[in-house]
Amino acid sequence: MEKLSSLAKFTASCPFLGRTKPSSLRTLCTSASPRFPSLTRLTEKATECPVMGAALAKRSGQLVQGFASFAQSVDVVKIHQDKGVDVTSGGIEKCPHASKALAAARTAEELSAAKRRTDALKAARPLHPVSVPKPPQATSAELKQCPAHAGGFNYEQFYASELQKKHDDKSYRYFNTINRLANKFPVAHTADVKTEVEVWCANDYLGMGNNPVVLETMHRTLNKYGHGAGGTRNIAGNCSWHLNLEKEVAALHRKPSALVFSSCYVANDATLSTLGAKLPGCVYFSDSSNHASMIQGIRHSGAKKVIWNHNDLNDLENKLKEWPKETPKIIAFESVYSMCGSVGPIKEICDLADKYGAITFLDEVHAVGLYGPRGAGVAEHLDYDLHKAAGQSPRPIPGTVMDRVDIITGTLGKAYGAVGGYVAGSAKFIDMIRSYAPGFIFTTSLPPVTVAGAHASIVYQKTYNGDRQLMQWNVREVKKRFAERGIPVVPGPSHIVPVLIGDAAQAKQASDYLLGRHSIYVQAINFPTVARGEERLRFTITPGHTLEQLEHVVTAVDDTFTTLSIKREADWAAIGGRCGVGSAVKETITPIWSNEQLGLTGPSSLAPKTRRAGESRKMDAHAIAVARQQFDELLGPVQKEDASPLITISGLRMRTGVTGRRPLEVPAAVPLAAAA
Amino acid sequence: MEKLSSLAKFTASCPFLGRTKPSSLRTLCTSASPRFPSLTRLTEKATECPVMGAALAKRSGQLVQGFASFAQSVDVVKIHQDKGVDVTSGGIEKCPHASKALAAARTAEELSAAKRRTDALKAARPLHPVSVPKPPQATSAELKQCPAHAGGFNYEQFYASELQKKHDDKSYRYFNTINRLANKFPVAHTADVKTEVEVWCANDYLGMGNNPVVLETMHRTLNKYGHGAGGTRNIAGNCSWHLNLEKEVAALHRKPSALVFSSCYVANDATLSTLGAKLPGCVYFSDSSNHASMIQGIRHSGAKKVIWNHNDLNDLENKLKEWPKETPKIIAFESVYSMCGSVGPIKEICDLADKYGAITFLDEVHAVGLYGPRGAGVAEHLDYDLHKAAGQSPRPIPGTVMDRVDIITGTLGKAYGAVGGYVAGSAKFIDMIRSYAPGFIFTTSLPPVTVAGAHASIVYQKTYNGDRQLMQWNVREVKKRFAERGIPVVPGPSHIVPVLIGDAAQAKQASDYLLGRHSIYVQAINFPTVARGEERLRFTITPGHTLEQLEHVVTAVDDTFTTLSIKREADWAAIGGRCGVGSAVKETITPIWSNEQLGLTGPSSLAPKTRRAGESRKMDAHAIAVARQQFDELLGPVQKEDASPLITISGLRMRTGVTGRRPLEVPAAVPLAAAA
Repeated sequence: MEKLSSLAKFTASCPFLGRTKPSSLRTLCTSASPRFPSLTRLTEKATECPVMGAALAKRSGQLVQGFASFAQSVDVVKIHQDKGVDVTSGGIEKCPHASKALAAARTAEELSAAKRRTDALKAARPLHPVSVPKPPQATSAELKQCPAHAGGFNYEQFYASELQKKHDDKSYRYFNTINRLANKFPVAHTADVKTEVEVWCANDYLGMGNNPVVLETMHRTLNKYGHGAGGTRNIAGNCSWHLNLEKEVAALHRKPSALVFSSCYVANDATLSTLGAKLPGCVYFSDSSNHASMIQGIRHSGAKKVIWNHNDLNDLENKLKEWPKETPKIIAFESVYSMCGSVGPIKEICDLADKYGAITFLDEVHAVGLYGPRGAGVAEHLDYDLHKAAGQSPRPIPGTVMDRVDIITGTLGKAYGAVGGYVAGSAKFIDMIRSYAPGFIFTTSLPPVTVAGAHASIVYQKTYNGDRQLMQWNVREVKKRFAERGIPVVPGPSHIVPVLIGDAAQAKQASDYLLGRHSIYVQAINFPTVARGEERLRFTITPGHTLEQLEHVVTAVDDTFTTLSIKREADWAAIGGRCGVGSAVKETITPIWSNEQLGLTGPSSLAPKTRRAGESRKMDAHAIAVARQQFDELLGPVQKEDASPLITISGLRMRTGVTGRRPLEVPAAVPLAAAA
Repeated sequence: MEKLSSLAKFTASCPFLGRTKPSSLRTLCTSASPRFPSLTRLTEKATECPVMGAALAKRSGQLVQGFASFAQSVDVVKIHQDKGVDVTSGGIEKCPHASKALAAARTAEELSAAKRRTDALKAARPLHPVSVPKPPQATSAELKQCPAHAGGFNYEQFYASELQKKHDDKSYRYFNTINRLANKFPVAHTADVKTEVEVWCANDYLGMGNNPVVLETMHRTLNKYGHGAGGTRNIAGNCSWHLNLEKEVAALHRKPSALVFSSCYVANDATLSTLGAKLPGCVYFSDSSNHASMIQGIRHSGAKKVIWNHNDLNDLENKLKEWPKETPKIIAFESVYSMCGSVGPIKEICDLADKYGAITFLDEVHAVGLYGPRGAGVAEHLDYDLHKAAGQSPRPIPGTVMDRVDIITGTLGKAYGAVGGYVAGSAKFIDMIRSYAPGFIFTTSLPPVTVAGAHASIVYQKTYNGDRQLMQWNVREVKKRFAERGIPVVPGPSHIVPVLIGDAAQAKQASDYLLGRHSIYVQAINFPTVARGEERLRFTITPGHTLEQLEHVVTAVDDTFTTLSIKREADWAAIGGRCGVGSAVKETITPIWSNEQLGLTGPSSLAPKTRRAGESRKMDAHAIAVARQQFDELLGPVQKEDASPLITISGLRMRTGVTGRRPLEVPAAVPLAAAA
């Protein structure tokens, strides 16, 4: 009796086993996983289980040999045999409890076996002698790096073998050195200061990294407050700058509160891991294309995770409905997916969240600054006119999509051209994250100078709409010209221009060729960032690119496709299409920015105009003035003396941490005689 | 037979059960845990088990009801009953397999029961109506924050209850607003720009946040390269600045390679989580006082973790020796522990690492810049003369402690006055972290301007020893004066000055009183950062503090102790002492910096000299010149024109992203007419 009741409890407490028919379980048990042929589909599924998943996936062999050995399938058979079930003629399969238990036990056994196979494979695998030279035996320092001689584990050899894997599957990354020049945007020099290239893949989408009011604000802040914050937010590192920026970000998203982090990776990781660990029995519903930072945060939370197919509302709803309404649920997704340019159906997801008692976590990292009349992102853009009419009011606009989203994260490092990330939401939610997230609490806060630059950037962009419009206009232009030449662009409604290559080696070659032959820098995006066969070049086009540069990139890519015999639109169509390129059924893509929003339907003087070589970029004096005023309280009005005085050391003029009105004590004390 | 063999396998594979006598197990099973009286000691121990630990601890109830229900203790009894063991008269206890299995099963059951009790407690706990006002029902926007009315989970109420816990246990953090003024270091203004206070707890230990060559370098970099890096290291955000800084950091620690992260929190988290997840069967040996970032990194790795008592070599060795030499092991510890000022026995830990086949992971976050003749940290300081003699050579010095440590992490955000963190080690190790750590790969890299400032700071500090010496001299001076007045300082050999208060409310009061009455800002450090009863004020003393400020802080603290009746040294001695304060047996503490290293044994002109009010801080012109030269290749020599030209908008002078020789296109284009 007791045994039966424990099995019954198990079935009752496992929503998967509790709802799955024994026949389905049997099918899962006997068919191989398409991804991992050595495992059954049930085994693969088990790694998604919120209870067994994380532990099983990571510890497979260990767990099975230790804890799970209590219940190997022989035990299940035994228990049923004891209860009089005929276990020899398949009778056990007819018992719903037994078959489920059996399936689970097999899962564990299979994982164990798979682990053993992997281990054996590892042990047998020879290191490539060419790529992994033996550590030199010359000095004791170097010997230390190879302690194998002393009977211990050979760490250095292990590092080498892990690197070899990356070389073997072509995912080893060689970083290009790119130094973006503020006064030649979008041009950069490479490792050699004299070799200049056009940058076509940076995330400084609007060129705010060189906006004059941003740089001016930073110079002023540097003069008055120096460099680092000097501590964590709790100890000496909580500046007016951080508080003001958080107020600004909250106002941007019309949320009550916001919190700034070292990066949006940290913001996502810290927020999701803290929230999921706190909410009792929380279940994450995570879009399958979510960014690594969200995946990590969800994983670190230890909460249950359900992955739904990218942008598939039906799949999301089917998965949501499996859980009681009162279970805490978080739907985590993005607005603009940076590698394919697709856009999350934010409003519809909010509808589902309401219906199933979930909250929404929206990553607007690739959208803030770029969408909406104030640059608050796609959620703002969906109610463009309402938000435009509300001006710069920080108050929520009830019923708008941005208001309905519970948690919004964004970055200061892309369209705002700075560094750092943030999360915005309700006051209590933000206060809870502030109070509990180790990744927020135990880290030095961002330097005032950086925060000031980001703040100026947000204010400028929320005041001036022209950069966003011009960027989208340029994106349309490049997409159109690529299409005219049959260059295959993965279709999408956003600013991302992914040119499909469809082969890892060719993508790398194309990137190298563009750089070497045409001085165009665009990074190849390969597996694992995108699926194999979907390799691409990801172009980002800014309002700073000139007409000549637009033409240059199109002819250069055209030449690259010809020279390297890369498949064009028609070639993909001939083989049935890929990633929406060359599909038989043409899906109509409506750009997020409408003609009207771009200013194309009004007087032509208001339409965006791509600048020509030699023409200056348009800056908005009003936005500059508005941004400046933000800082008058802390910095005082911009002064004639702000750029001086200069001090002289070794005959060179030098600008120091000096404001005009309060001479720093430093300069006079520099013991000049001590200079060599 | 099959059952027996699976139990035997289990015993063989579990090092704890395999080695523990049945009698010991029985004792553990029957005695209550001192920390969690509702659990047995075995249950508590189980949470430390590398196999069951993490999963059990986090998922207790779920796991038990799901997976572990296969093997509740009734099943173990049944299996033995079937084998003819007399289970009614304690016979089962005599079977080693059974008693172990039984113990493990009980563990699971107890955890499940404990989970149920906690859940029941949670459900019964009323929310405090005063602190948690009901969400207003006015707008639909606000209603959305309280979706309970629709039958879903009440998220807002939950956040409120989590915050209430912080208020209840007095760990809720109120951030003080501190704006550190570059030209008045160490003075800051509060939220009100006119209210100035002395900062006595910042981690800008050397005042490098306002060093002139740092600020000059940043101004120059800002002019030429603008603000943000514009991408991840792999896509458009890999600048010469990052590569040069990594080379500099590697050279500082005389290691082959280094990698820069957004912060040292991220460096520790990303490195430890990646390393532990990669190394097969890796075991972490973590000092019990390690920083949150290391704890998180180890936890996220999913690797086994063994915690050893703070700085206790015997305990470490006892724990190391339990594992085979060939098992990969990482000993993770710090050099200077920031809250108590204790220092890890680095050399002795390296000895143990060699003996037991481990590698060492040393966090020098509170030591870099401050110890060693070049500021490379305590590991460098331990071979002071050798490193001094080697000058600025980047090559390792075989046999030195710094050479023997495998992995060193450090921060750019404390003594270097910037932001960011790094890890240094062997070339292959660094390349592996670079290639696999998501926290490194998927995040925007630090802005060139920040990296440049950090780089200049490191070069200045590795060239000039005077700031380190003066800081330690000032620390000695304050410790001496505190001692003279019976102010209890937790004894330690480092620069940290922890003044023991011993009570949470008093610590907060003392901090508030010092700020309000004496304009001295020093943050109270309470539980959970330190143990209850060990609350303290943590003073940091810089080379920038003046004699008058030193005197001021001593009299102010004296007054605070009198006014608030805080226990002095003698009071602690009377009740047996605490944290080394007032102990009957006086331990002799030898400061890390010797008299000779401080320059106290040579001519008095070379001894550190605390500056007086009105005197400028000493800057080293040679170090400034050396630091400057680092950047000539990228920035060109410092030019007269670097501070100009200026442009005028709305009648205000404005410094923009301009270098003297290449006028930016921006200024001329500013449509002044558009200004409001």
